[in-house]
Amino acid sequence: MQIGRNQKMRKSKKFDQLVKNAAGRIVPTIVNGQQMVPYMGIGKYKPTGRKAAPMISSCADYPPDGNKVVPSLKEALIRCGLNDGMTISTHHHFRNGDLLANQIFDIAKELGVKNLVWFPSASFPCHEYLIKYLEDGTINRIEGSMNGPLGKFTSEGKMKGLGVLRSHGGRYQAVQDGEVHIDIAVIAAPTADAFGNANGVHGTAACGLLGFALADSQYADKVVVVTDNLVPFPCIPWQIHGNYVDYTVVIDKIGIPEKIVSGTTEITKSPDRLYIAELTARFCDEAGLIYDGFSFQAGAGGTALSIGIYFADILRDRKWKARFARGGSNKYLVSMLEEGLTDYILDGQTFDLDGVRSMRDYPNHVNTSPFTSYNYHGKGNFASLVDIAILGATEVDVHFNANVVTHSDGYLLHGIGGWQNCLFSKCTILPVPLFRDRLPVLRDEVTTLCGPGELIDVIVTERGIAINPLRKDLIAKMKGSSLPIKTIRQLKKEAEDICGKPDNPGFLDEVVAIVKWVDGTVLDAIWRVDK
Amino acid sequence: MQIGRNQKMRKSKKFDQLVKNAAGRIVPTIVNGQQMVPYMGIGKYKPTGRKAAPMISSCADYPPDGNKVVPSLKEALIRCGLNDGMTISTHHHFRNGDLLANQIFDIAKELGVKNLVWFPSASFPCHEYLIKYLEDGTINRIEGSMNGPLGKFTSEGKMKGLGVLRSHGGRYQAVQDGEVHIDIAVIAAPTADAFGNANGVHGTAACGLLGFALADSQYADKVVVVTDNLVPFPCIPWQIHGNYVDYTVVIDKIGIPEKIVSGTTEITKSPDRLYIAELTARFCDEAGLIYDGFSFQAGAGGTALSIGIYFADILRDRKWKARFARGGSNKYLVSMLEEGLTDYILDGQTFDLDGVRSMRDYPNHVNTSPFTSYNYHGKGNFASLVDIAILGATEVDVHFNANVVTHSDGYLLHGIGGWQNCLFSKCTILPVPLFRDRLPVLRDEVTTLCGPGELIDVIVTERGIAINPLRKDLIAKMKGSSLPIKTIRQLKKEAEDICGKPDNPGFLDEVVAIVKWVDGTVLDAIWRVDK
Repeated sequence: MQIGRNQKMRKSKKFDQLVKNAAGRIVPTIVNGQQMVPYMGIGKYKPTGRKAAPMISSCADYPPDGNKVVPSLKEALIRCGLNDGMTISTHHHFRNGDLLANQIFDIAKELGVKNLVWFPSASFPCHEYLIKYLEDGTINRIEGSMNGPLGKFTSEGKMKGLGVLRSHGGRYQAVQDGEVHIDIAVIAAPTADAFGNANGVHGTAACGLLGFALADSQYADKVVVVTDNLVPFPCIPWQIHGNYVDYTVVIDKIGIPEKIVSGTTEITKSPDRLYIAELTARFCDEAGLIYDGFSFQAGAGGTALSIGIYFADILRDRKWKARFARGGSNKYLVSMLEEGLTDYILDGQTFDLDGVRSMRDYPNHVNTSPFTSYNYHGKGNFASLVDIAILGATEVDVHFNANVVTHSDGYLLHGIGGWQNCLFSKCTILPVPLFRDRLPVLRDEVTTLCGPGELIDVIVTERGIAINPLRKDLIAKMKGSSLPIKTIRQLKKEAEDICGKPDNPGFLDEVVAIVKWVDGTVLDAIWRVDK
Repeated sequence: MQIGRNQKMRKSKKFDQLVKNAAGRIVPTIVNGQQMVPYMGIGKYKPTGRKAAPMISSCADYPPDGNKVVPSLKEALIRCGLNDGMTISTHHHFRNGDLLANQIFDIAKELGVKNLVWFPSASFPCHEYLIKYLEDGTINRIEGSMNGPLGKFTSEGKMKGLGVLRSHGGRYQAVQDGEVHIDIAVIAAPTADAFGNANGVHGTAACGLLGFALADSQYADKVVVVTDNLVPFPCIPWQIHGNYVDYTVVIDKIGIPEKIVSGTTEITKSPDRLYIAELTARFCDEAGLIYDGFSFQAGAGGTALSIGIYFADILRDRKWKARFARGGSNKYLVSMLEEGLTDYILDGQTFDLDGVRSMRDYPNHVNTSPFTSYNYHGKGNFASLVDIAILGATEVDVHFNANVVTHSDGYLLHGIGGWQNCLFSKCTILPVPLFRDRLPVLRDEVTTLCGPGELIDVIVTERGIAINPLRKDLIAKMKGSSLPIKTIRQLKKEAEDICGKPDNPGFLDEVVAIVKWVDGTVLDAIWRVDK
């Protein structure tokens, strides 16, 4: 691994010690008072401990008639013992339509509770509202994605505690391994019964599934299910088991439906992006990655959706069938399922109403969780079984290392999502434009390391395709191809010939957040921007 | 509680100390070297510890392509480190058609491994084969049901260790709470993929579901899935998650289909039993227990099935619908679902091929597990939400205490199954004949206490119905009923007038097994019979 060579050894005001990890990145060894393990390389860190062990409950302490309804969220939080310094978790299946997270901290503020840790599975622009609570000390820090305004706030050094960024699988791993102890999990549920069984497929706020809240339900001390659609027991499917739930709360509205199913769910119209999509599909085909029974994951971005449509065309033409398509599901994946072009959709979150409908109606549209899909500290997970993973990146360096959380100006603007976990697929392809806003995407070194280059196989740009030299098999297969196969340095040069060589962002010597690897080790630090 | 008064304080050869528990029963305080908590009363024992914490695994130690197949069961057991004194678990979804448990111990014998603990979710006559391994020290003891020949063997004091009988819920509780540590779980699966995902709805050995193996998959150190129907990833539904599985083994035949779906699945033809069934249904109706949206559990015995048919008739007549019927499912329950007489079947094990088909095809035929249904150390379970539970008993005493494991001759012949867990229903009814083989079922004191009388509401016999005096509400409701409401002492006298007063069985002063309560405390001891 050859990165971080031009990072000077920084000293942080907040942290005793910084070390250089196996990726050559400078990272803190103590984060929010907790000892960290610096990244050791892929598969190198071997956990030796035991999983977190929640307290044993007894039915004797729960209502025999199963009615766990309490009058309000405030009442539920009080009964859960909401107190200073606690970790409160929420999930992000409602995306920018979430109405609950902000309410939780309104209540905390009202009760005078301080210094909370918010542990969402992701945050969205609607959570900009929480900045006032980050400022006034109600919230100490966010462990989870800090997108948009929250990212800017963090990058400018304004968050009291240190941000911790984890992948979806890393979030499960952290909870399972006891690195993060959730005191209170608040699970917004489009449908639930009084016992706490809950699902995301029914109700006006239907979001498909609730997999991101699975770890929370299993490991949190106290679990509150909040719904606006209470049904008589049993709430089926019971994606969340009421047997993990302490209290159920009924409110008028848990989410804004039209914002729940938002997302980039239209194929791209940009000629450059369409061309990248076509190149990617042709590459996969020529490299023999597409076959009868193959599997793929393509995100919900415009380019990725277009690639999926190319895949569908190839399958249809050859009378082939994918064994499974990994979602985030959307209308395009659903139509593949309906047309018989894939046996299964293995879905982590539905991105549109077709996805929700399909998951509700088709047994082959399967509800997955970060445990089944992504948890690196399980006995395997299925991310490594996927033939082709199509992912994005804000930056890629000449060693194929990639960044998804910060922009080249240094600002933290995105979460990791399932990105790190998907890198374990059999072939990981990043279709990226050569530059954005006249800033080259290909760099000498990424601003923030999120994915080690060893796991990134192919970069596809509008000017050509670069194959990771480690993938000799792919290079051999593409010998003599008519596709524009180039080296990554060639592609970088072409970008720089157009845009010029970019400046590195200016940072202050202060860590504001860290990026965890899928095994809980610290892969990189995010530094305070020098405005 | 007024039982055990005529039990003399016995001394056991094997155990240091015997105490009288809150039910007045004499029980050992140390069992197989482990300290026990004597039964303290219903809901009185409050656990204070933490759940068992399995070792953290890492994907780095599992094949990235998800292929966990090893050539044989022997190879898998060797890789799992099979060794003296280990606890090996199996499940009983194949009932008397199980072909796997015996093979495991054949392999153990071949490898010279000694002193194993067999921890099945239940045993069947086909496991009589294992007596030779109980005799030669390959198996130290069984913790699980010891039915038929294994029960006789145990009752005669021939098992080296002490038998431990638990309910289905108690088995989950014991594993979850760390009372039983499973070293190796062997999960027979009618269908599985190489990753270890498994289900019971497909394949020639289809048994419906695999819920009894859930705890085993979650908590065992090593998990082996054995199948005769390997399908490409993903095996859907994945009732058992491959993420918990270490090895997959493919063999020719895991079970004998015609014995898998065996069970008493025909309604009774005995006039006395039919009358008991009719009385029970009429009682439930007059007492107002049946209503639009009610729920019930009736077992697979002939009388219980007949009661279910009466319930269906009542619903049909009044254009009502049950909210859920709790299975063991069978063709009668399935026809209720198909006819729209119940919204859901919540199923713990399918008892016939109609049950298997229905669970496979209908989303409203729901796969449950001892965790969702029965675990007393959860945040509630749904057994207490069931309106009417119809259960059996070998004996009932004048305080409504009941026995399901031993016969009046003292022999251990049955397991507890879900019986103890179902006692928590809103109304528990035991329809029993007044006598069997001229031995009265109603006694001064039960031979073995399995269910405290406080939880048993109604006894229905062919000579009349006895309501537990604690259920003043039911007594009030039935005032003026034309049904033959009597006291339990009246019923007992009627039986004794016909059969004479029975002798108590003769026991030696040696404990051979214990009966656990749903919270892990020791409810009773089973004594060696004096042949």
